[in-house]
Amino acid sequence: MNAHGRIPAGARRGPPRPPGIQRWSAEDRGLHVERLRDLLRVTVVDATAATAAAAAGGARMPSESELMREFGEPRDVVREALSLLADEGLIQRRRGVGTVIVASNYTVDGTLPGTSTSLSDHAAIGAVGAQLLHWRRGPVPAVIADRLDDIACGDATLCMEYVLTIDGTPMGLITNYLRSGESAGMSPEDFGDDFYALLDHHGVDMHDHDIDMTAQAADARTAELLGIEPGSPTQLFEQTLRNSSGARFDFAIGRLRREIRLRITGIGRVLPVHPAQ
Amino acid sequence: MNAHGRIPAGARRGPPRPPGIQRWSAEDRGLHVERLRDLLRVTVVDATAATAAAAAGGARMPSESELMREFGEPRDVVREALSLLADEGLIQRRRGVGTVIVASNYTVDGTLPGTSTSLSDHAAIGAVGAQLLHWRRGPVPAVIADRLDDIACGDATLCMEYVLTIDGTPMGLITNYLRSGESAGMSPEDFGDDFYALLDHHGVDMHDHDIDMTAQAADARTAELLGIEPGSPTQLFEQTLRNSSGARFDFAIGRLRREIRLRITGIGRVLPVHPAQ
Repeated sequence: MNAHGRIPAGARRGPPRPPGIQRWSAEDRGLHVERLRDLLRVTVVDATAATAAAAAGGARMPSESELMREFGEPRDVVREALSLLADEGLIQRRRGVGTVIVASNYTVDGTLPGTSTSLSDHAAIGAVGAQLLHWRRGPVPAVIADRLDDIACGDATLCMEYVLTIDGTPMGLITNYLRSGESAGMSPEDFGDDFYALLDHHGVDMHDHDIDMTAQAADARTAELLGIEPGSPTQLFEQTLRNSSGARFDFAIGRLRREIRLRITGIGRVLPVHPAQ
Repeated sequence: MNAHGRIPAGARRGPPRPPGIQRWSAEDRGLHVERLRDLLRVTVVDATAATAAAAAGGARMPSESELMREFGEPRDVVREALSLLADEGLIQRRRGVGTVIVASNYTVDGTLPGTSTSLSDHAAIGAVGAQLLHWRRGPVPAVIADRLDDIACGDATLCMEYVLTIDGTPMGLITNYLRSGESAGMSPEDFGDDFYALLDHHGVDMHDHDIDMTAQAADARTAELLGIEPGSPTQLFEQTLRNSSGARFDFAIGRLRREIRLRITGIGRVLPVHPAQ
């Protein structure tokens, strides 16, 4: 199908234009619109981040004329860029009011919270909570055993599924598989609203994590639990937690709504080396 | 709309069931299906990663009976989990053949390639290429200037847009804004098929990067350039490159197809400290 799609011929520029040329042909219009859309998108996300999620939803965008001046683009390009942002649900154009930012955006720090720091304090994006859906000790499937250390297929793990909420709104659906060594003595009543606090409370040696991220359309159950339309984009992640010896003790699969931006900083040029795999 | 959606009442379990109970009510069936789907999904991605992208597309999944035995689930749960994976386009059920893996999956290391390592060698997922769409030096918009250091609004940056390809298939659409200090002397002919090699070739001090990730539905132009359906999920990223003094010299906005899994490893519990912001 699309897996072997090529870049459409119309998009190829042939030999690149020499640098410094300031005008494009009509066929470059889509590029202008998209680039402006992306710049405005960054502005919108900034605005909602700066005022915190609770305050989002009221800020006004500059007028079309102001945007034309600021970005040096004609009115039709400005209008189309705004229209793309409206399609994404980030802004609304209100007659007599102008363009209003309606999105909530939550930028979440991808590092693990420090010891005795709650996820709410760490993320600093609102009250982070959790609704436990499932809690079960059972034999670990081979595919999970492969992702944990010092565990054999059939050993027990604790499987927990929960909905992550921000200010009461569901934002993530996450399933964890925790080794029995680390999960011994944990009960559902301990779970509270913070998975990492549960680990800290039980003295689990949590040192660092690995994360894989992919885009995925929401299936029916995920959509229902997260309060979004089936098919809407989500971020699928797989997370592996390691202890300070480098041993992998927890594996999670989760989905995040598009309001969540995961931020990871200070990623270097070489892989960190772990003592054990 | 959905921004204030709550967890559907049916999903709440009330007080969590005590641990150790091995059977669920009928209403938990969706959970069984989704959990099995996720476990099979990991298996499929493993299989395609292990054989490399080029070899993907032929591997067979175990039979329904084998999956029932392995995961201890009834046939209808196995069938529904397979059906969800088929909806995602990862597998196909072929009469007389069985279930065949049809997806290509590319796990991309989120670290920056080392000096004199090509992106192809770094990523080790196939031949990584690039098709330059746009190359222009111009005044930096305020929103980008805010994301770079030692630059004022109106200073020149080099704006480059390109399609990232893997084995000739478009996989990402990326726009970079590079400070004039670092981009001096670069020409479109230098671009080749590797943005990082371009920087290294010009002696740019590239030390680390920050990355933000969000899920987003593909707009019409992105969909056309990436050979996917409009509305399909993509991963939207913003990337900031820093030099060894911590100064931000490049900002990029990009979109990746769902075949790309971005992997970042060894993320710790505290933020790395940069000497300058």
